[in-house]
Amino acid sequence: MTAAPADYRAFYRGRNVLVTGGLGFIGSSLAHQLADLGADVLLVDAMIPEYGGNLFNIADLTNRVRVQISDVRNESAMSVLVRDREVIFNLAGQVSHIDSMRDPFTDLEINCRAQLSMLEACRRHNPGVRVVFAGTRQVYGRPERLPVDERHLVRPLDVNGVNKAAGEYYHLLYNNVFGVRACSLRLTNVYGPRQLIKHNRQGFIGWFIRLAIEGREIEVFGDGSQVRDFVFVDDAADAFLRAAASDVCDGDVFNVGGAEPITHRDLVTLLLDVAGSGSVRYVPWPPEKQRIDIGSFYSDSSKFTNATGWRPAVPLREGLATTIAFYRANMPHYVEAA
Amino acid sequence: MTAAPADYRAFYRGRNVLVTGGLGFIGSSLAHQLADLGADVLLVDAMIPEYGGNLFNIADLTNRVRVQISDVRNESAMSVLVRDREVIFNLAGQVSHIDSMRDPFTDLEINCRAQLSMLEACRRHNPGVRVVFAGTRQVYGRPERLPVDERHLVRPLDVNGVNKAAGEYYHLLYNNVFGVRACSLRLTNVYGPRQLIKHNRQGFIGWFIRLAIEGREIEVFGDGSQVRDFVFVDDAADAFLRAAASDVCDGDVFNVGGAEPITHRDLVTLLLDVAGSGSVRYVPWPPEKQRIDIGSFYSDSSKFTNATGWRPAVPLREGLATTIAFYRANMPHYVEAA
Repeated sequence: MTAAPADYRAFYRGRNVLVTGGLGFIGSSLAHQLADLGADVLLVDAMIPEYGGNLFNIADLTNRVRVQISDVRNESAMSVLVRDREVIFNLAGQVSHIDSMRDPFTDLEINCRAQLSMLEACRRHNPGVRVVFAGTRQVYGRPERLPVDERHLVRPLDVNGVNKAAGEYYHLLYNNVFGVRACSLRLTNVYGPRQLIKHNRQGFIGWFIRLAIEGREIEVFGDGSQVRDFVFVDDAADAFLRAAASDVCDGDVFNVGGAEPITHRDLVTLLLDVAGSGSVRYVPWPPEKQRIDIGSFYSDSSKFTNATGWRPAVPLREGLATTIAFYRANMPHYVEAA
Repeated sequence: MTAAPADYRAFYRGRNVLVTGGLGFIGSSLAHQLADLGADVLLVDAMIPEYGGNLFNIADLTNRVRVQISDVRNESAMSVLVRDREVIFNLAGQVSHIDSMRDPFTDLEINCRAQLSMLEACRRHNPGVRVVFAGTRQVYGRPERLPVDERHLVRPLDVNGVNKAAGEYYHLLYNNVFGVRACSLRLTNVYGPRQLIKHNRQGFIGWFIRLAIEGREIEVFGDGSQVRDFVFVDDAADAFLRAAASDVCDGDVFNVGGAEPITHRDLVTLLLDVAGSGSVRYVPWPPEKQRIDIGSFYSDSSKFTNATGWRPAVPLREGLATTIAFYRANMPHYVEAA
């Protein structure tokens, strides 16, 4: 079940694949690529209100993928759904840092406990599977140095980061001890079509894009000098495809970040330019947000590039243009109540 | 609420202190020191069968400490018990690595979820408290270098290590974000009076001591060349007392390890010599134990020494002699069914 890097896309033809969080932002983008590659695609999503699952995300995939509306916290359901799968892209999660601080236990149940039960299901019912986990740069907390590589200490600064770290450690443990092959991709800020933009609690990039499209004012905290890196969703999906197609990633963690670190100020300037609408205003940091802010962050993805050949292919300007065109064509499906 | 290092013992006179896991090995030793220092001591312990809680551990403290038989997983109980406490020594935990692999969810509930709920209870009902968490060297997994300092990556190799890492991260997070002052002491192998020796699933040192006392054969896996460090329980308790008596440890993690790294072979030779009974046999590694074994490990505690002045005071030979004398006098309380 190993493919040379050059063959990684051919690897998926006829392959039984499960995507948890499959109706969400990255999950549904992965579903599109997998369908195009000829995989047998099963998508599992809990469709929790306020989370990223959206039936419209896969509306054009009818008859090309199967969908199970089920929650990764449901152990008995998951123990059935994992059984005949060769690859699991494990993307289901509570992804709002803000929500994790307001309701830490729900975050724990989804990002920590459910990960353990899914891996237990694999160990018992499908130990030959390979799992790729959607980790996050949030586990690093406030960086001690830039760019951040995988040698940087894990010191999460919010509940979401703690539980995502635990979920990731479980994957490595099940790989190392129980032989359930698994790895984790620590994603930085991913953006692109199909991202939740109904509210602003799942990262600022999607929200900024919505405000620009709607001709509204974007509020940037502080002076906008903080640096971030961004990955276009197709590049993120490509990273998952590469990670699962060979054994080089098993048992390890990899940063998956952007090639063009950019300040908030320059990002917003670029966004407004590409959108041709919207405006910006600089406002003081709200104290409760500043407490969990991490300052500048951008990651070093060279370990993953060396392992799999992956590089981000979509420049930021191009990715923003694609994203804006997508939402302009489909806005009602992303801003109205589910 | 800060004491200069020299005054740290005086700091506890009349101080309201809670010890979770207070009837266990380290918790009850801490209870003895706290009672002697004139603290108002509340011990909470769930007395879970097969865990370390033992009423005999505090039998000589009657009328000097209060005891609540309660489980840290019980959120409503904990939210009452934390209220008037100035210091919480948070030692309650599932400590068997072996049990954590057989029943990962119980380990998660105690070492991960209950830690979060206890910290939530503090945030809501007693934000001025200081918490010292009993962390573990287990979070490091298999060391990349020796001695292991706190810059070493966290890469746990068993479920217990994952959940203890998450529990520790929660403490740091509540310190950094919510102002509930907290720190973690990553303990290496602690030994001494009052340790559980009923079974061999809570670390090998107590079990080896029991076998030596009973004149039985000690099985050492492999050639016994693996190195470990050991801390006598009174030194471990002293570390907790120092950590909570000032603000220098808040928001940080510290190794608390032994001064005399020693191979299993030399340890057993020393133990048999001190005990004057028992024997040793070298046997091949059982595969299921070898999978979660970490090789040689000893820690660098200089960060904690620099912060608090703590150093292990009890040499290994002396600690073993004290321990053996204790169990010889009290064996029925530690080997019979609870």
